[in-house]
Amino acid sequence: MRKNYLLTPGPTPLPPEVCQAQAKPIIHHRTPQFQTVLKEVSEGLKYVFQTKNDVFILTSSGTGAMEAAVANLLSPGDTAITVQGGKFGERWTELCFSYGITAEIIDVEWGKAVDPKEIEKRLKADLKIKAVFTTLCETSTGVTCDIEAIGKVVKDTGAVLVVDAISGLGAIPLLTDAWGVDVCVSGSQKGLMLPPGLAFISVSEKAWDKVKESKCPKYYFDLKAAKKASDKTDTPFTPAISLVIALAESLKMMRQDSMEVIFARHKKMADATRAAMKALGLELFAPTAASDVVTAVEVPAGIDGEKLVKTMRDTYGVTIAGGQSELKGKVFRIAHMGYIEEFDIIVGIACLEKVLQQMGYKFALSAGVKAAQEVFLK
Amino acid sequence: MRKNYLLTPGPTPLPPEVCQAQAKPIIHHRTPQFQTVLKEVSEGLKYVFQTKNDVFILTSSGTGAMEAAVANLLSPGDTAITVQGGKFGERWTELCFSYGITAEIIDVEWGKAVDPKEIEKRLKADLKIKAVFTTLCETSTGVTCDIEAIGKVVKDTGAVLVVDAISGLGAIPLLTDAWGVDVCVSGSQKGLMLPPGLAFISVSEKAWDKVKESKCPKYYFDLKAAKKASDKTDTPFTPAISLVIALAESLKMMRQDSMEVIFARHKKMADATRAAMKALGLELFAPTAASDVVTAVEVPAGIDGEKLVKTMRDTYGVTIAGGQSELKGKVFRIAHMGYIEEFDIIVGIACLEKVLQQMGYKFALSAGVKAAQEVFLK
Repeated sequence: MRKNYLLTPGPTPLPPEVCQAQAKPIIHHRTPQFQTVLKEVSEGLKYVFQTKNDVFILTSSGTGAMEAAVANLLSPGDTAITVQGGKFGERWTELCFSYGITAEIIDVEWGKAVDPKEIEKRLKADLKIKAVFTTLCETSTGVTCDIEAIGKVVKDTGAVLVVDAISGLGAIPLLTDAWGVDVCVSGSQKGLMLPPGLAFISVSEKAWDKVKESKCPKYYFDLKAAKKASDKTDTPFTPAISLVIALAESLKMMRQDSMEVIFARHKKMADATRAAMKALGLELFAPTAASDVVTAVEVPAGIDGEKLVKTMRDTYGVTIAGGQSELKGKVFRIAHMGYIEEFDIIVGIACLEKVLQQMGYKFALSAGVKAAQEVFLK
Repeated sequence: MRKNYLLTPGPTPLPPEVCQAQAKPIIHHRTPQFQTVLKEVSEGLKYVFQTKNDVFILTSSGTGAMEAAVANLLSPGDTAITVQGGKFGERWTELCFSYGITAEIIDVEWGKAVDPKEIEKRLKADLKIKAVFTTLCETSTGVTCDIEAIGKVVKDTGAVLVVDAISGLGAIPLLTDAWGVDVCVSGSQKGLMLPPGLAFISVSEKAWDKVKESKCPKYYFDLKAAKKASDKTDTPFTPAISLVIALAESLKMMRQDSMEVIFARHKKMADATRAAMKALGLELFAPTAASDVVTAVEVPAGIDGEKLVKTMRDTYGVTIAGGQSELKGKVFRIAHMGYIEEFDIIVGIACLEKVLQQMGYKFALSAGVKAAQEVFLK
């Protein structure tokens, strides 16, 4: 007998209700029965996104929605700012290059958040910049950016603010309309507590003006087609029906909890995780801009980071994430997002302690667990 | 109490085992556990596609795989033949237009199959044609094309043969390699008995040569990225994990049945459905090239076709499909594909008879059911 615990920053575990909702008998998507579901999820997504604008559902990973943003807002030859301080920020740059868009790259040291003043400076230096591509939570480093401050900087310029909120939406605050986020993209397998397979994209009035001018080729990710279908409570192409039905279930749960309660839960889990790491003598990878979504921790000297993650997963059933790209083997990442609560965090820390001790790292057994318990008791 | 029957050409009903497989606890996609699943489905897909080439899994509707074919094989300014004899053939033309590709359109009367000689003529007239886009089963009209004959015509030219086998794959014969199909695209919600959300694309050596030259922008649907990841038993982006796990289950069932048994079952259901329609005095929409996947039937004079479909679905729980685009209200379509077997067909015909009689259409009650039973008894 072995139980499995998933503490990765996507996919995240599924509530049993959501898990089972996927397995309901399949219905046809062009029926009043499915339209009822589409209406419900459309309202629920607006609530989670905190927007009055349309939020379109795409059947793809989050990257599909990122591509939709680039291909629908810009034209070849345009210039856009991309903020890259991790693997997912770099994706914005790669996407721009794919479409012949000049990326004015703001390189941020991995583990740090971008300074909104840097964005302001670049926007002032080049008035032709049409979009600013940012990341709410850079999953690869565990850094949260100050989107609210960036919103203020972008608001009165000719550029639109695009936020990759794939990690973070439904876990930490993102007030799409109030913060001036023109296009917010997200995915299903993070804060929304669903399997991967759905992506979401909201579009402001200012963004629609850009969409109308865009000359990049697109078809499957064409937002005008999405809008036309959505206005008739339809989707332009066959959607991932079982995932949309599961989405209705997860959104219902989130509305019952309320965003305030959800945000507070995530903050507490993050505080507990960070306290535990410190108590174990471990260093946070991003101490100044640590995200409440996922905590990246430096692998201590003398410990094989990849073996640590592998042993926790394959021997004890507790899956955390290792480092990506240049951080491979150098950090491990514990997610505290979606359908994860305090006792999952306790399990994760206890398993980490177990394997660290087996691997010869010196610390007082239970120091991490106790630090987390203290936070949860507050 | 009301039972629901789904007789639509996508989504099709799900076997209980497949339905439940979706609801297994979610696992992370970058783990040995998921790699085992990926290896298994990769082999299973090759069997169903009847190919030795790679078959890539995309998280999208089938249209995403169609876009992948266009965007990866061609460059703006290229010329390609599109065969359009229905809504899905037209999609190839629309996709070419989106990417600045000149479509040499072969317009086929809806309800008829393309004459392979017409393709041969066009290929000879313009040696610059780089691709021929066709449809195995045109779902909107219920027509099956002779892909084997088209393959012979395209084989020794510089063009690649691309087949939209979204409807049809895993239901009627399509021998990808033996017939010279360079790129075969399909979707999950038809013959593969899964929910929508996954698409598949196979790529021949000849097609890879085109991929290398292609200058269309792409990122999410980039086949070179798919190949690079696939070679490491990975996917370039987070896949729809729960659907891939369900795919493993459906492929296992299909291999147990064997393609021969599956094809024979589909043929018998189609024969039975066509016999029933004739016995009811109804006209097939595509009598000369009727598909074994879906049967399109002309709505008889004096009957409201949309009301017929609506009543069957909303009053009696039997969902068939109406007509699309120019066929709206003029035909209804009964699918016999995927997890549908003879008694589902009997139910569909019995319900059709019930509603037709209520709507005042004159025929001998049970004539359709009896004709189908006779076919199934053979």
